[in-house]
Amino acid sequence: MNTNLRTIGFIGTGIMGKSMAGHLLKAGHPLLVYTRSANKANELLDQGAKWCSSPVELAKQAQVIITMIGYPKDVEEVYLGENGILKHAASGTIVIDMTTSSPELAARIALEAKKYQIGALDAPVTGGDIGARDAKLSILVGGDAATYESALPILQLMGINIGLLGPAGSGQHGKMCNQIVTASTMMGVCEGLLYAQTAGLDANQVLKVMSSGAASGVQLNTQGPKMVKGDFAPGFMAEHFLKDLSIAIGECERMKLHMPGLIQAKKLYTILLEQGMGREGFHALFKLYLNQQTH
Amino acid sequence: MNTNLRTIGFIGTGIMGKSMAGHLLKAGHPLLVYTRSANKANELLDQGAKWCSSPVELAKQAQVIITMIGYPKDVEEVYLGENGILKHAASGTIVIDMTTSSPELAARIALEAKKYQIGALDAPVTGGDIGARDAKLSILVGGDAATYESALPILQLMGINIGLLGPAGSGQHGKMCNQIVTASTMMGVCEGLLYAQTAGLDANQVLKVMSSGAASGVQLNTQGPKMVKGDFAPGFMAEHFLKDLSIAIGECERMKLHMPGLIQAKKLYTILLEQGMGREGFHALFKLYLNQQTH
Repeated sequence: MNTNLRTIGFIGTGIMGKSMAGHLLKAGHPLLVYTRSANKANELLDQGAKWCSSPVELAKQAQVIITMIGYPKDVEEVYLGENGILKHAASGTIVIDMTTSSPELAARIALEAKKYQIGALDAPVTGGDIGARDAKLSILVGGDAATYESALPILQLMGINIGLLGPAGSGQHGKMCNQIVTASTMMGVCEGLLYAQTAGLDANQVLKVMSSGAASGVQLNTQGPKMVKGDFAPGFMAEHFLKDLSIAIGECERMKLHMPGLIQAKKLYTILLEQGMGREGFHALFKLYLNQQTH
Repeated sequence: MNTNLRTIGFIGTGIMGKSMAGHLLKAGHPLLVYTRSANKANELLDQGAKWCSSPVELAKQAQVIITMIGYPKDVEEVYLGENGILKHAASGTIVIDMTTSSPELAARIALEAKKYQIGALDAPVTGGDIGARDAKLSILVGGDAATYESALPILQLMGINIGLLGPAGSGQHGKMCNQIVTASTMMGVCEGLLYAQTAGLDANQVLKVMSSGAASGVQLNTQGPKMVKGDFAPGFMAEHFLKDLSIAIGECERMKLHMPGLIQAKKLYTILLEQGMGREGFHALFKLYLNQQTH
């Protein structure tokens, strides 16, 4: 058996987590799985993963623990709660939170982990469900260099563009940068396409010509065609994007940064959720723009 | 002599126009040049272009006339003024305005051109000074199909992604879409990088990891590194971008479209110009963000 293979525990096997965990399994790592809705683990169990009935059970057996869960409060509970993984993992374990969560919480987890001689990384990702499926995620990492080096071969099974951005919390900060850029970009994409349709242009033709110019980007080129088609199925859900923007705004307030684009985008996503579209794709923002009476 | 070669008159040989006209010359088209600051034509004259002392002189000799000038008022004068090209060009001439200008003016020029049996296209571009230099522009065209087909071989000497979007004015509308997407995107890029620097991250490393994720795009990837470096030399000037945004907002008001991202971006660029940065690159918006007291 390849001595580089470590027993990995994966907590949270939703759309993204399932694909990511699958790559670890394919590479030969023994994989333990826990997720809140047990049926979401079935596919991985069929492929040879082993089910754990709680994070504690998983933590006791894994050499590396990866979490990809919902909200910061979930992350806090899974790591720091009474039945949290830090209290039950062996010293020498590495824990990697790949959830998009708060930088402050990531720093707190790393500090607590240190007490137990556990190495902790925050390593949120960008690249969406397709990046996860194709193991082409970008991974923004915070933590100490030694833990990063040790975890890197595992991260490389899930992503292609991986960078250590600084100490614990820096991965989450990097992800906030990513979401801040994306937030205003999404307004731009919606507004450009609304203009195109209202002016009577063929929006698909406009998208084609724009795709190689100054406006070009991942959101224009991937969400734009879906907006025009009226396909708002989630790759990435609006309610998760609003969560990210809320974390970002909290950090900006703390740093006393004035971010007019981000603030405007958060207002629009808040309305989108109020209108019941939180579980649609985050590009459903276009529907709000189409209904010009609502904001 | 290749019978497909037509005598082309080029009005406006600034940063973009000079490169674009050069490609026509290299392809063998006899080239006539007029530009307001005569010294800006020197390079083309050295390459074999012929100088005309006025738009009228140029219009009388050219089979195809291309304009790449500053503001809609300049376009209006050059096309529709007493010494404008429509009054002096032969019937059968094709005129192509590649300036970013107003859709309404483009439609008016096309209507007037028709009276003289002149074919008119509005064909603004995106891709910047580098796209112009490398003949890789995207060209957004409005006009009738016959004129488009006749002009296409000439447009193909300057661009690689060319589309007829609809009747006269549609090219300008398409360009407005492009600028509307770009406007909010620029806010996002500035805000993301401001966050990165304030949070103490290595901004270049963050840019590297973001370059393959959901935030990735032409502006992040090309202007982002310049912002971090503090290099605000113009490829594309802030005052020209504000001109474009002003045209776009005028059209949005006419169509009764609520565009919060665009409105916010225009506010910021207005402040940027008030602070004397109109002739810097349009990514100098980042300087406004760095100085958080000013907006």
